[in-house]
Amino acid sequence: MANNMTLLWCTFSVPCWRVMIALEEKMLQGYNQTLLDFDKEEHKSTIVMDLNPRAQLPTFKHGDCIVNESYGACMYLENQFRSQGTQMIPEGLAEQALMYQRMFEGQTFYEKLSDVVYYEYYVPQGERHDSAIKRNKGNLAIEIKLWEGYFQKMEAGSYLAGKAFSLADVLVFPTIAYSFRSGLSAERYPKLGAYYSMMKDRPSVKTTWPPHWQEDQEKPQWGDFLKEL
Amino acid sequence: MANNMTLLWCTFSVPCWRVMIALEEKMLQGYNQTLLDFDKEEHKSTIVMDLNPRAQLPTFKHGDCIVNESYGACMYLENQFRSQGTQMIPEGLAEQALMYQRMFEGQTFYEKLSDVVYYEYYVPQGERHDSAIKRNKGNLAIEIKLWEGYFQKMEAGSYLAGKAFSLADVLVFPTIAYSFRSGLSAERYPKLGAYYSMMKDRPSVKTTWPPHWQEDQEKPQWGDFLKEL
Repeated sequence: MANNMTLLWCTFSVPCWRVMIALEEKMLQGYNQTLLDFDKEEHKSTIVMDLNPRAQLPTFKHGDCIVNESYGACMYLENQFRSQGTQMIPEGLAEQALMYQRMFEGQTFYEKLSDVVYYEYYVPQGERHDSAIKRNKGNLAIEIKLWEGYFQKMEAGSYLAGKAFSLADVLVFPTIAYSFRSGLSAERYPKLGAYYSMMKDRPSVKTTWPPHWQEDQEKPQWGDFLKEL
Repeated sequence: MANNMTLLWCTFSVPCWRVMIALEEKMLQGYNQTLLDFDKEEHKSTIVMDLNPRAQLPTFKHGDCIVNESYGACMYLENQFRSQGTQMIPEGLAEQALMYQRMFEGQTFYEKLSDVVYYEYYVPQGERHDSAIKRNKGNLAIEIKLWEGYFQKMEAGSYLAGKAFSLADVLVFPTIAYSFRSGLSAERYPKLGAYYSMMKDRPSVKTTWPPHWQEDQEKPQWGDFLKEL
């Protein structure tokens, strides 16, 4: 029981989801958790600000240790609970190299997805340009084709860094899931689609599935941002 | 001798500098290296593209393993050469948590610095706005104050994650160095300035100091982008 751990999170958040998957994989169930409402600006409330001056979610605490950055929290958990639950860093040299490469490429993937999906959130009205929207979508399409290509070169049923599930999956799967929920076509990107389907059945993913997605699992949540991609 | 390692890099690059510092810290001198000219678009040449479809520098290879993402390469090197050179992941729980927190916050720092310094490079002419330039500078100022504050709460002479040098320093110091080289005032940010001075004397930093900075160490390289910050 991970009752010395606290997670403040919000639904709709890729970074929060990463940490929740890692906690499940490391068998750290039973942590204290509070679901906050981003739209009500609860991420700016004092319970967050006291632990996280950036006013961001996730906010994560283990004993007296605070690791709010999602990549940092997942790596910290793997390091602290190495022999518990899933081993998330593979032993093999090649798999390890591929894991580190893919997990950080995953940040670029998430940035490019955010540039499309959150454009109106990030860019004030007077500074928006159709040319930027078009370019962002183009960049995201190139990015997604790159990932489809990575899977094309691997055996069917592979995880992101090879035969074994790893930190790369913990950190990048939520971005892939959000892409499909934003209208990405599994027909056009069949390898990514197969990976998405495989991962959806993983217990750590099932347990942490965003609550607002439960009602209608197949309908794009974000509108059809990525439909034509 | 690290003669089974290859690094393709360019000067002026924070991500390249991270990997070069890590290689020095892990006593991996003697690697094959090629300095490419970004302005001549040599990062799009076939020697890069063959290893790195993103056409980015650094491009790093160890034997048959390719890890081009700078954070990934540094973590891979620490993992593969754990008992060689500097131990870059501290033992203590609190130091380790702080290291993971700061190293990933460092990505935000670098993003905000890039938003200011590379604005004209990233944003096409017709899409530029004075309001965005002003906002980016404001965001960077907030960010830098945050880091100054982190050092204020630590003992004099501390590294980013405490008493010991760690991966956080490898990954974030180049961003801090670029900030000062872009005109940041060490008078206004004395704790960051003291850290910058301390790190400048570290052998791994001295050896890898950007070659184009050698001639006039004190003159801001990038112009005075950050002078008024």
